[in-house]
Amino acid sequence: MTAQRIDGKALAARLQETVAARTAGLGATQGLRPGLAVVLVGSDPASQVYVRSKRRRTAEAGMQSFAHELPEDTGEAALLELIARLNTDPAVHGVLVQLPLPAHIDPMRVLAAIDPAKDVDGFHVVNAGRLATGQPGLVPCTPLGCMMLLRERHADLSGLHAVVLGRSNIVGKPMAQLLLAENCTVTVVHSRSRDLPMLCRQADILVAAVGRPELVRGDWIRPGATVIDVGINRVVRPDGTARLIGDVAFDEAAAVAGAITPVPGGVGPMTIACLLANTLIASCRQAGLPDPDLTPAPGA
Amino acid sequence: MTAQRIDGKALAARLQETVAARTAGLGATQGLRPGLAVVLVGSDPASQVYVRSKRRRTAEAGMQSFAHELPEDTGEAALLELIARLNTDPAVHGVLVQLPLPAHIDPMRVLAAIDPAKDVDGFHVVNAGRLATGQPGLVPCTPLGCMMLLRERHADLSGLHAVVLGRSNIVGKPMAQLLLAENCTVTVVHSRSRDLPMLCRQADILVAAVGRPELVRGDWIRPGATVIDVGINRVVRPDGTARLIGDVAFDEAAAVAGAITPVPGGVGPMTIACLLANTLIASCRQAGLPDPDLTPAPGA
Repeated sequence: MTAQRIDGKALAARLQETVAARTAGLGATQGLRPGLAVVLVGSDPASQVYVRSKRRRTAEAGMQSFAHELPEDTGEAALLELIARLNTDPAVHGVLVQLPLPAHIDPMRVLAAIDPAKDVDGFHVVNAGRLATGQPGLVPCTPLGCMMLLRERHADLSGLHAVVLGRSNIVGKPMAQLLLAENCTVTVVHSRSRDLPMLCRQADILVAAVGRPELVRGDWIRPGATVIDVGINRVVRPDGTARLIGDVAFDEAAAVAGAITPVPGGVGPMTIACLLANTLIASCRQAGLPDPDLTPAPGA
Repeated sequence: MTAQRIDGKALAARLQETVAARTAGLGATQGLRPGLAVVLVGSDPASQVYVRSKRRRTAEAGMQSFAHELPEDTGEAALLELIARLNTDPAVHGVLVQLPLPAHIDPMRVLAAIDPAKDVDGFHVVNAGRLATGQPGLVPCTPLGCMMLLRERHADLSGLHAVVLGRSNIVGKPMAQLLLAENCTVTVVHSRSRDLPMLCRQADILVAAVGRPELVRGDWIRPGATVIDVGINRVVRPDGTARLIGDVAFDEAAAVAGAITPVPGGVGPMTIACLLANTLIASCRQAGLPDPDLTPAPGA
C-alpha cells in the first residue's frame, strides 16, 4: 500500500465536534436550539438501526431530536399531514423521512411535501434545482461528505479531471454538480458506458458509487489518483459470516492511488455527520443568521 | 467537406409545422388554444428583435400571442404583479420574460415567480431540479433543440461519449443532463479544464457552447464525430461588415466530423421552434392531456 488512507471515521468525528461546538454557540448567543425530526414508517430492521443512530448522534451534537414512528399501514394522507405540521413547527429545523417507504406510499409525493428549507436530506426537487443552477440550497449528505473527504487531500480541485461512476439522484448526479462547481472537469460514467477502465484511468479523482462489489480494479486507477469509494456492499463469506466491501478492490487500488477511502470507515461515517451539518445550516438560515463555519478542526 | 450538414433551419421548419398541426388539432378536438405571453421590459434593440420574432412565430403556429411591453423604469414589484396575473390567467399557458432585465430588477426573483408549469423557457429552479432528477418538466429550449438535431443523426445515443464544452445554466448544464438521460457517457469541460483538445477528441458527440469564436479546431474533433455548435458569435470584418460564426472552425471541423451543424442555420433556428413546442406541451399538461407527439415530419 502506497496510498494515503483518508480516514472518514476520524473526519466525521471532527465534523461532529465542530457541529456540536457551533450548536452550543447558537444556544449561548441566540437562544436557538436546532431540531431534527426523523420520521420512520413501518418496522424495516435496517431503517430502524439507521434512524436510531441518527437520533443518538443528533442528541450527542446538542440538538433536539424529534422521533416519529408510524405503523406500516399509515396512509399517505396521514404522513403528509404530519409533514405539514413539522414544516410549520418552529422548533423543527430539519425534516427527514427515512426511505424506503412502504409500497402504498409514493416517496416522490412525500419528499415534495417537505419544506425545501427543512429538507436536510437535500432530496427535494427545489434543492436539486438549486444545486444544478449554482444557488445556495441543501445538498445531499453523502456527496457532501465525499467533498469534505476530498478536501482532506486537495486544497484546490480546480482543473482536475473527476470521474463519477454512477448516476443516482442521491449520489452520482449531485456529486457531479458539486465537482463541477469546484471547477473540475467532470465525466459521469455508468452501466451503459463503454470501456469503463479506460474512462476511469483518466481520473485525477475517482468517485465510485454504483453498488457493485470491487468493480473497480487496480488497473482502472491512474497512478496518484484520489479514490472515493461510496459503495457499501455486504458480502457473505463461505463460513456464513458477512463483511462490508466497497465498489473498489481496495488492496489493488491502494497500491496505485495517491489517496483512498476505506470501506468501512470512509464515506459511510461522513453521511450522518453531514446530516447534522445540514440541520445546523438549515437552523441558521431559518433564523436569518449567516451559514456556520463547518471547517472541521484539523486532524491530529 | 465530408461531414453531413445537419440542417437546423429545415428541421426547425418541420418542427414548427408539427407544432402548428398539433395546435390545430387541440383546437378542433378540445377547443383549446395555446397561449404564450412574452414580457419585455425596456427597449434593448436586440431583445426587441427576439421578442417580435417569437410573437410572429407564435401566431404562425396558430397560438395566441400576448404582448407585454413595459417601460425601462418599471419596478420589480410591478413586474412580479404582472407575472402573478399571467400565472392565473387560464388563456396563458406559457410565460416568457425576455432577458436581460434592467439592472434594478433581480432576474432570479423574477424567474422564480413564474409558475413552473408555465415556465416555457425552462429556467425555473423547479424545472432545473426535475431535469436533474429525471422527472418530467419543461426543458430549456436551446439544449432541447440540440437533442432534436442529434436525433437527425443518431437513432440511439446510448453508450456514446458526449463532451459538452461550457457549463452555463441555460445550455451546458441542462445539455449534460439530457445526454445523461439518453445514456451517454458525459464529460463537461470548461474554461478551467486542462487540455481541451484531448478532452474534445474523445467525443462521439461534441456540443460547443462557450461563446468563443472558432475555439474548436479541426484537430479537436474525433473522425466521424457529430458536432453541435451552439455558439453564435458576431465578428466584424476589416471592411466593417459583420458575420456570424460559431464556437467551431466549421471548414476544418467539417473535414473530420461525421456530421455538423452550421452557424447560422444550425442550433439557432431550433430555439424558437422549441419554445413553441414547450408552449404546446405546457398547454396539454395544464389541460390534463397527454404530451403531444412532436416528432417532426421526416425531411425531404
